[in-house]
Amino acid sequence: MRWSTGRVEAFSDGVLAIAITLLVLEIDVDPSGYAHLWRALADEWPSYLAYVTSFLTIGGVWIAHHALFSRLAYVDPVLMRLNLLLLMTVSFLPFPTALMADALRGSDATERTAVIVYGGVAAVIELLIATASRYASGRPELLREGAEPPSRTDRARGGVRAVLYGLALVAGMLIFPKLAAFGYAVVAALAVLSPRGEGRLTLRSLRN
Amino acid sequence: MRWSTGRVEAFSDGVLAIAITLLVLEIDVDPSGYAHLWRALADEWPSYLAYVTSFLTIGGVWIAHHALFSRLAYVDPVLMRLNLLLLMTVSFLPFPTALMADALRGSDATERTAVIVYGGVAAVIELLIATASRYASGRPELLREGAEPPSRTDRARGGVRAVLYGLALVAGMLIFPKLAAFGYAVVAALAVLSPRGEGRLTLRSLRN
Amino acid sequence: MRWSTGRVEAFSDGVLAIAITLLVLEIDVDPSGYAHLWRALADEWPSYLAYVTSFLTIGGVWIAHHALFSRLAYVDPVLMRLNLLLLMTVSFLPFPTALMADALRGSDATERTAVIVYGGVAAVIELLIATASRYASGRPELLREGAEPPSRTDRARGGVRAVLYGLALVAGMLIFPKLAAFGYAVVAALAVLSPRGEGRLTLRSLRN
Amino acid sequence: MRWSTGRVEAFSDGVLAIAITLLVLEIDVDPSGYAHLWRALADEWPSYLAYVTSFLTIGGVWIAHHALFSRLAYVDPVLMRLNLLLLMTVSFLPFPTALMADALRGSDATERTAVIVYGGVAAVIELLIATASRYASGRPELLREGAEPPSRTDRARGGVRAVLYGLALVAGMLIFPKLAAFGYAVVAALAVLSPRGEGRLTLRSLRN
Repeated sequence: MRWSTGRVEAFSDGVLAIAITLLVLEIDVDPSGYAHLWRALADEWPSYLAYVTSFLTIGGVWIAHHALFSRLAYVDPVLMRLNLLLLMTVSFLPFPTALMADALRGSDATERTAVIVYGGVAAVIELLIATASRYASGRPELLREGAEPPSRTDRARGGVRAVLYGLALVAGMLIFPKLAAFGYAVVAALAVLSPRGEGRLTLRSLRN
Repeated sequence: MRWSTGRVEAFSDGVLAIAITLLVLEIDVDPSGYAHLWRALADEWPSYLAYVTSFLTIGGVWIAHHALFSRLAYVDPVLMRLNLLLLMTVSFLPFPTALMADALRGSDATERTAVIVYGGVAAVIELLIATASRYASGRPELLREGAEPPSRTDRARGGVRAVLYGLALVAGMLIFPKLAAFGYAVVAALAVLSPRGEGRLTLRSLRN
Repeated sequence: MRWSTGRVEAFSDGVLAIAITLLVLEIDVDPSGYAHLWRALADEWPSYLAYVTSFLTIGGVWIAHHALFSRLAYVDPVLMRLNLLLLMTVSFLPFPTALMADALRGSDATERTAVIVYGGVAAVIELLIATASRYASGRPELLREGAEPPSRTDRARGGVRAVLYGLALVAGMLIFPKLAAFGYAVVAALAVLSPRGEGRLTLRSLRN
Repeated sequence: MRWSTGRVEAFSDGVLAIAITLLVLEIDVDPSGYAHLWRALADEWPSYLAYVTSFLTIGGVWIAHHALFSRLAYVDPVLMRLNLLLLMTVSFLPFPTALMADALRGSDATERTAVIVYGGVAAVIELLIATASRYASGRPELLREGAEPPSRTDRARGGVRAVLYGLALVAGMLIFPKLAAFGYAVVAALAVLSPRGEGRLTLRSLRN
């Protein structure tokens, strides 16, 4: 049984769009903070950091997913299940996101735990995207006519990011946990910015 | 009045994608657990189990839904309402999911109740999918040109799963309720893994 | 400026699918009820009633929306705004739903208020659907080639439902508020069941 | 790498539809208010105002997004990232919405803060839409065949709205904060009503 990619894409888009939009629900100012609202808002920085990191992580997954599926004509049962496993892990991300946001205001030990959990889930997500890409690249019968298989670079990218998440994690453990949290944000931002293309954002192009 | 399947699929995909993504909202570590976060995270196992079970259950519904609709050219009013009833039951699933996750930390009687409710809702979902499939198989005028009607095996599958949920439930009641919760996870995993196809996940295909 | 219907439908489907799926979040058993879970679950009946009523109401809106848009080739700015207003009201429905579910366990006066609010919002939704349908029927340039304009019956249907919601409301006020809540459920069920068609659900068709 | 607009639109529609539908979750009557429910409902006016304002703001973004993408044949990496940044800001809006709704019942200083934050986020959203539109207008190779580049007026519109949000904000700071909140509602309503077209809503067209 081979499936056309249309509905798999639609379902995946739905899940990714929802997971990315649910992230905002973890941001919340405690009513006790309303007396000094500017300060209370400033104290929420871990929530903003976690929000941006997870938004970029899921955005990066969406970009990689788009790049993979744009080359596919069919989805076979294995790819369909890898995709479901990927979606299950991405849908889970709001939990470690909220956990990390809360823990970054706590003790050092709490922080450490939350940061390890977050980094672990993010690394699993990247490995799953890399696995799906690698699987598809070995199955020419699934590719769209005229589509090149995913390049070696593309396939490596997910794996590289998984390693980078791991490095951020280790650096955070050795030095201090908050470093890992900022490291994740950087890795996620790179994931969104790395796909090269002929478009470049210059002040001149915007003024045009 | 016969409807084209496009928008029914889009709406169904939306509802299934949202229901599957809302499941994560039931997972939550109590602030009192932050002092010993690893332990608090470990104590959340019933939430993870319930999350995975319900994710796979809804994922399995999506696969069966996709298989059914890929054969249809039109949706008649009966099928449209069966579909709506199915979506209503699937959308309800986050409630018994949260209930079971909470109850698995409670007394034996609480556990028993929650596990029966969950198993009942899951069985109704399977019966509705089986009913929709059976209805469509008797209406050749709804089928896409060249599409075979759903095979006897396909149609039976939903019914078989309903029975398996029932068996897990009974086994749980006779022995101990947690067994039923694990049984559900196994049935849901089978639902996702059972559609046969020519794709097979081997270490070799991934290394390729 | 005339817009093709594709993206308006996709956005509307998204909003309706999400509103219908968020309804489950209002159902919740208080931890204090876990000692006697069967009874606590039974005491939740107003939540189930409100869930089913709102699910069917939004389901009915989706059916009417589908029927309207299946005849349209273009959406003009007025229709686009009527649609946005409709979506704004439908998206609001989870609030009166939760309100009614909570209030049906409260005093008679509370019940009365909640039931009036719910009925009012539901009636506005039906009026908006009827208005959109009526507007489109007077604009042949928006219709798909070969499509008949919405029939008089179709256009009247939304108006009729608005009146039925009003009648349920008045009956509830004169006799007792719970009656109105059950009345809404009946009107919503009729909205889903009323579109006639050649499909009929018989035991025979299912056994086939 | 240039991407077809289909999946970018689908993902954006998903995120916008979810963000717009999550807004209702901030509306909530405290159980203590159930004794005098009409009054408690009336006291919720800041929640309704914030709901309508944010719904119209996101609705306006959707209209502008639709207008932009209906002219595009391809999306380049810059536009894709501008779009992601736009979605990240729109997805964040439920937080300042809930903040403003809560703060409008608080002290003057709290109100002021919340209103500044809301106006700032809304202005950033408008600037991002204006930037994306401006970028696309300078890239004829991205346009659909036969499509005119966005008109000068269209491109200016987002910028104008950003200024209007700023004006409402300043007026609110100088006079009293609630004024700014109402000002935002007016600007958001204008955004939805401003795209001119040949459709006009008259009582006569509805009676037809």
